Amino acid sequence: MAEVKLIKIGICGLGVVGQGVWKHLQRNRKLLESRLGVKLELARAAVRDVDKSRSVRIPRERLTDDVMGLARDPDLGIVCELMGGTGLAREFTLAALEAGKVVISANKALLCEHGQEVFEAARRGGGHYFFEASVGGGIPIIKALREGLVANRFKLIYGVLNGTCNYILNRMEAEGLSFEELLKQARKLGYVEADESLDVDGLDTAHKAAILGFLAHGRWVNLEEMLVEGIRRITQEDIRQAAALGYSIKLLAVITRDFQTDRMFTRVHPALVPRNRVLANLTGAYNGITLSGDIVGATSYIGRGAGQDATASAVISDIADAALVIKGSHRLLLPDEALRIHEEDSRPCGIQPLEEVSSLYYLRLTVKDEPGVLARVATVMAENRVSIASVLQRELPSSKGASLILTTHRSNEKDIRHAVRQLGELESALEEPFLMRIADFEE
Amino acid sequence: MAEVKLIKIGICGLGVVGQGVWKHLQRNRKLLESRLGVKLELARAAVRDVDKSRSVRIPRERLTDDVMGLARDPDLGIVCELMGGTGLAREFTLAALEAGKVVISANKALLCEHGQEVFEAARRGGGHYFFEASVGGGIPIIKALREGLVANRFKLIYGVLNGTCNYILNRMEAEGLSFEELLKQARKLGYVEADESLDVDGLDTAHKAAILGFLAHGRWVNLEEMLVEGIRRITQEDIRQAAALGYSIKLLAVITRDFQTDRMFTRVHPALVPRNRVLANLTGAYNGITLSGDIVGATSYIGRGAGQDATASAVISDIADAALVIKGSHRLLLPDEALRIHEEDSRPCGIQPLEEVSSLYYLRLTVKDEPGVLARVATVMAENRVSIASVLQRELPSSKGASLILTTHRSNEKDIRHAVRQLGELESALEEPFLMRIADFEE
Repeated sequence: MAEVKLIKIGICGLGVVGQGVWKHLQRNRKLLESRLGVKLELARAAVRDVDKSRSVRIPRERLTDDVMGLARDPDLGIVCELMGGTGLAREFTLAALEAGKVVISANKALLCEHGQEVFEAARRGGGHYFFEASVGGGIPIIKALREGLVANRFKLIYGVLNGTCNYILNRMEAEGLSFEELLKQARKLGYVEADESLDVDGLDTAHKAAILGFLAHGRWVNLEEMLVEGIRRITQEDIRQAAALGYSIKLLAVITRDFQTDRMFTRVHPALVPRNRVLANLTGAYNGITLSGDIVGATSYIGRGAGQDATASAVISDIADAALVIKGSHRLLLPDEALRIHEEDSRPCGIQPLEEVSSLYYLRLTVKDEPGVLARVATVMAENRVSIASVLQRELPSSKGASLILTTHRSNEKDIRHAVRQLGELESALEEPFLMRIADFEE
Repeated sequence: MAEVKLIKIGICGLGVVGQGVWKHLQRNRKLLESRLGVKLELARAAVRDVDKSRSVRIPRERLTDDVMGLARDPDLGIVCELMGGTGLAREFTLAALEAGKVVISANKALLCEHGQEVFEAARRGGGHYFFEASVGGGIPIIKALREGLVANRFKLIYGVLNGTCNYILNRMEAEGLSFEELLKQARKLGYVEADESLDVDGLDTAHKAAILGFLAHGRWVNLEEMLVEGIRRITQEDIRQAAALGYSIKLLAVITRDFQTDRMFTRVHPALVPRNRVLANLTGAYNGITLSGDIVGATSYIGRGAGQDATASAVISDIADAALVIKGSHRLLLPDEALRIHEEDSRPCGIQPLEEVSSLYYLRLTVKDEPGVLARVATVMAENRVSIASVLQRELPSSKGASLILTTHRSNEKDIRHAVRQLGELESALEEPFLMRIADFEE
């Protein structure tokens, strides 16, 4: 029997995820080694403070505060960048890739902002960059997209990609509490990023959508090219009305591609999801993604979207793939493939203009309770070619005016936005109109 | 740039799936080639009758009726065995593997009955055997299990693996039709295997469960070592009672492993699935699988479980993996890994005895409508240490006796079976008792 190869692993950053990877890799090492046919050694970890007490026990001599030294350590075949951010993490990643290592990361922001640069460094240095943990927590969604469904073109990808928002929306629905109250509770549970806007304003979801869009279509979409809206304005009234109409409200990422015009569009927004869809029934901090392939049809993937263990599971699966690469196989990376598609394609995938992006809409207006309001609202809608499907008018308590809830037939983003702007400017408007999309997608 | 490698593919069997693979591979060939960095050629297909008319157009000179010639053709790097069965398909597979080819298959029966032999032939000849399409149609469940979640041990795997049964049960629930009527309709739609027992008596599901169990635990479980029950006896009364209790009825495969005793158990049976579980809400001919890993927690996978396109998608994803193997990587196959685990493990995974397999149960009795029946039933249950959780007694129309529906607290299989046997022998029994499990699994 040939000698079994020893692969040494370095971990940069021992926060929640880093400690999870260390712990589970240590615990299931024998199983993994037997599955992979290699020996794995957790050789070193780079941290800011080597003397800090941690819940996993790590021999003192394996710790270092020399981050860049770890990136270049010739002993290490695999390094995991688990510190986050786009400063030192970027330098670390580029150095390790140029040194020919496999870098494993859960760093969405780095990938979105510097993806191109990262892949070029990998190409130059012969390194590889794996990032299964960046989207969908422990769900192996990147592997499904780039390998399991490699035969397919994806006209539609949509998903609940932020567990914190799902936790909040799900409890708003189940318990009738307000957004603010639940945000407070989620914060206490440690579910919310230090910058809460990443979660509740949809930026985290947008980063993940950019990664899925790149993998499916070979083009990085910037935040500025997306439509990104968060969940702060959702009220109990919205939750109740949606429920009465047969929907659950979820923060969705939606990536569509029109193969006729070869254009894609990426959007992140709260949406009314029909109850019979898989994603409508996600509870707790779960994530779910539906991939609609031209051959396979719709397939859906559900699991815990974040947390130490789920993320560690994804990082370790990347370590396993990396070990196989190092063991002697040169396995293709999709980022390279995607770039190649992009280069060879004479018409690189474009971005759809808003006139081509259509949806059904849900619109909540708060207006003065006076005669003629409905007529004025209906006129604005008609003038913008938005056809109303249903209307519900309700007096608000303590004479705060009336609430007017409309749903529309299929309209385009440009028209509805223009209508919403005009509705907000009506003399009867007491608040900015609140617009959501209805996710009646043809899967 | 290095010369791009040309990989020639042979297909054996041009039935529904074979034609689907040919059609979709032809159509998306350029995309695949660009993703994989190889050239692919659909070189030859072996069929029984070369002159038969088919919906995909294939040049006459690419067709042959020499199946074994195709298996040994030195030109071909990949062959797809899509004829099914365990006779010629076995010979074909062994010959191709011994010739060092990658064999791709959706053949559950062959894998279950001759898996060991197939993997040994692959080892001897340096070939590989891929079978993503054998379980879960287009859902990349095998890849998820063996790669995406490679860090995990699986204490519980359960799934709806037969689309035909899901179609029937779902329509029984939605439309109130009988099993017989829907079986007839499913047959007309071409959903039912020629031998309907494979579908409705759970054998197809059992084959798939054996494959998942082997991949997760490295041991082939025979049908005789499983508990296998089908859906023929489910009535509208069961559907209604289950619904009233908050459950949907699904035909489940359930694979559990106890890591304390290092034993596993595999069972296939109709079960009452709580409505809040993902699998309870599967509609149509869909499949769904929940994998519960010790690190990642529960992840679920949903998609079309059969049909030309979904199966073709899975076969083509195997072709893609095979192309990467041939391109120059020696990538590890899980069957080998699993065998290795099994060899090295001093305590190979055993099978749990029935006393250790426990569940909540649903039991429907048809009894004479006479005094004392309930007392006798309750006595039998108590004597067998089965504790009753709920009872519903209902008079049947046209004095056909009474229906007695019981649910139980957690009991073991041995005790409940003994109780059921005794209940069937009661003088008041008018029919064999009908037992189902309640799938209240801790995921």
